[in-house]
Amino acid sequence: MTTSATILETHPRKIAEELRTILAQCLDACLDCAQTCTQCADACLSEPTVDTLAACITSNLNCADICTATAHINARQTAFDPEFAKPLLAVCATACRVCADECERHASHHQHCKTCADDCRRCEQACRDLITHLS
Amino acid sequence: MTTSATILETHPRKIAEELRTILAQCLDACLDCAQTCTQCADACLSEPTVDTLAACITSNLNCADICTATAHINARQTAFDPEFAKPLLAVCATACRVCADECERHASHHQHCKTCADDCRRCEQACRDLITHLS
Amino acid sequence: MTTSATILETHPRKIAEELRTILAQCLDACLDCAQTCTQCADACLSEPTVDTLAACITSNLNCADICTATAHINARQTAFDPEFAKPLLAVCATACRVCADECERHASHHQHCKTCADDCRRCEQACRDLITHLS
Amino acid sequence: MTTSATILETHPRKIAEELRTILAQCLDACLDCAQTCTQCADACLSEPTVDTLAACITSNLNCADICTATAHINARQTAFDPEFAKPLLAVCATACRVCADECERHASHHQHCKTCADDCRRCEQACRDLITHLS
Repeated sequence: MTTSATILETHPRKIAEELRTILAQCLDACLDCAQTCTQCADACLSEPTVDTLAACITSNLNCADICTATAHINARQTAFDPEFAKPLLAVCATACRVCADECERHASHHQHCKTCADDCRRCEQACRDLITHLS
Repeated sequence: MTTSATILETHPRKIAEELRTILAQCLDACLDCAQTCTQCADACLSEPTVDTLAACITSNLNCADICTATAHINARQTAFDPEFAKPLLAVCATACRVCADECERHASHHQHCKTCADDCRRCEQACRDLITHLS
Repeated sequence: MTTSATILETHPRKIAEELRTILAQCLDACLDCAQTCTQCADACLSEPTVDTLAACITSNLNCADICTATAHINARQTAFDPEFAKPLLAVCATACRVCADECERHASHHQHCKTCADDCRRCEQACRDLITHLS
Repeated sequence: MTTSATILETHPRKIAEELRTILAQCLDACLDCAQTCTQCADACLSEPTVDTLAACITSNLNCADICTATAHINARQTAFDPEFAKPLLAVCATACRVCADECERHASHHQHCKTCADDCRRCEQACRDLITHLS
């Protein structure tokens, strides 16, 4: 069990067990993805072919920003509103898909882009699973 | 002219003048709103009646997170996609509306909530203006 | 091996193996701590005794902000400067210590404060280990 | 008077007028600098000579991260500790100086680097002014 799940379990607002599990998976996936994207952007900046990676770096930075915001906002259960959370999760899932598509174009040349694409796909799925659960 | 507008003017991608103006207004409004919400959350935490302000603090923190992400993502014009920007702006506008509504309930007692509600309304409008321009 | 370590291994700048290990531990600890603090702040806001937790919430929010910035900045190896990294890590370690001390005061009443204090101590140590390695 | 100053004036903790003025200048400078650095990084990514700008982009991203964290943390007056604020401000001032130095190398070719260097210098000074006031 991750720390995210542990804290959700001890939250004074009782959160249903199934939501807790799916929510913790989404929080963890968002945070992993944010950090991987931050690192992939930096690795791209160090590549000799950085001039071919500008779009990749930009989608990395965008994905990191929205994943971090999504994790923090969904972590806040004090005044949680599923009708706000769902479109936010949908935007996050789109950013993950855009970044995964872009990283995959470079995956055969750069292992960091391959790893990043995988993390983005996982985060996109985790966001979509939470949307389904909240609907 | 703000710094946001100055930098957009000197960006190697030529950005149409009308978009530049509306975009810079949105960036500036998002950043002002993010900081005001961060400060309002803190001022609420120092109020003797903080137990009545938990929802207000939460919507402040959420609004600050999404406004910061929205400003950074929209500032990135290297691989700008209006079809991604519009739903993100819509989510940001919703967060601003939620926070403004919540702050207004406390505006007669707390001047910082009044100021924050005003900034949130301004930011909501700036996001909606940019959505309209991109449509 | 975490994703942080995997990406560091595939970075075009060759990073010495021992630094990679200690750096990845620090990045992971900072990100865990940032998320735990974000969640602890929210759990505190939902407690009936929130009026006694204002300092705890504030140190949670500060610790989350500096841990996120520290993780992102140390992840950037393209122009890494140990002489900048060390005072940043020292500030982060201090924020973790302050937050752990404050959370521990509430640990017997609130399990989330206990979990958060543990994560802050772990992150403080990971920052100090990296400082030692860079010195 | 900026919004930062307005909110500080209405904060339930009475903040001395002179501190309010210097603090608001620092908050505003940090936020301007964070946004300018975010935009300069993006403009650099769109330059045909991006391969010569990797260090500049990295220092832009680092400066944006630490300026945002510094603004948010110093905005929190609920449990403000000058002994924590001072080393944080010193780290922020260093990041601003590093970024200004790097941007200045490209200022004759790129107007966005010139504008960014100016904002970083202003922010460095605002951080140092606040350190002096807190000492």
